[in-house]
Amino acid sequence: MTERLFSVEEILTDVPEKATKKVFYENERLNGAVWYVPAGEELPAHYHPETDDVWVVLQGKGEYFLGDGKTAPLEKGMVAVAAKTEIHGIKATGDEPLVFVAFAAPLPVEMIKVDK
Amino acid sequence: MTERLFSVEEILTDVPEKATKKVFYENERLNGAVWYVPAGEELPAHYHPETDDVWVVLQGKGEYFLGDGKTAPLEKGMVAVAAKTEIHGIKATGDEPLVFVAFAAPLPVEMIKVDK
Repeated sequence: MTERLFSVEEILTDVPEKATKKVFYENERLNGAVWYVPAGEELPAHYHPETDDVWVVLQGKGEYFLGDGKTAPLEKGMVAVAAKTEIHGIKATGDEPLVFVAFAAPLPVEMIKVDK
Repeated sequence: MTERLFSVEEILTDVPEKATKKVFYENERLNGAVWYVPAGEELPAHYHPETDDVWVVLQGKGEYFLGDGKTAPLEKGMVAVAAKTEIHGIKATGDEPLVFVAFAAPLPVEMIKVDK
């Protein structure tokens, strides 16, 4: 059986102190990753032409990039959905690293970088 | 703009004290829900023939149903992936309600109930 249950803490074992994406799951339709973003660092604004990207925040907080210079606060206990073509990205703020689980579907994921 | 950021605490405002699914997002390809399962209650075993169902646990713990009578512990800080056709479900254990975010894609979601 393909592994189905994952611990975010285990996924982040030995993660470096910089913005890091750890992909822990992938099938033909979706992939799952954990993002670790130290305070002050950011995941630059981008969009996916054909893929939805949903984030579930487990720790920390940040300013989520919505495009056109707009941002909104995102923190532990919140969910962010970027449907295909919707700009997203985040700058971690606060005192502790930002940690979120990200699922992207459908695959493949094309990424277009944009201004935040 | 369709709403993109959601607070799980807000989604669960006035949730009844029974196993409850609150769908908070849907587009043509995926939907997102928050499940609230009081300790001792369960979400019965089932599978989706054509849809992946991924869960991110924010609170509590439970016994995740893998099918064929197999279970595995799932708790806060863990992620469970049920690819299409894979059996899943959960019984909440421990002292506090189990809360998890569930994303299902692609749509529509057909559900087949099975023995756990």
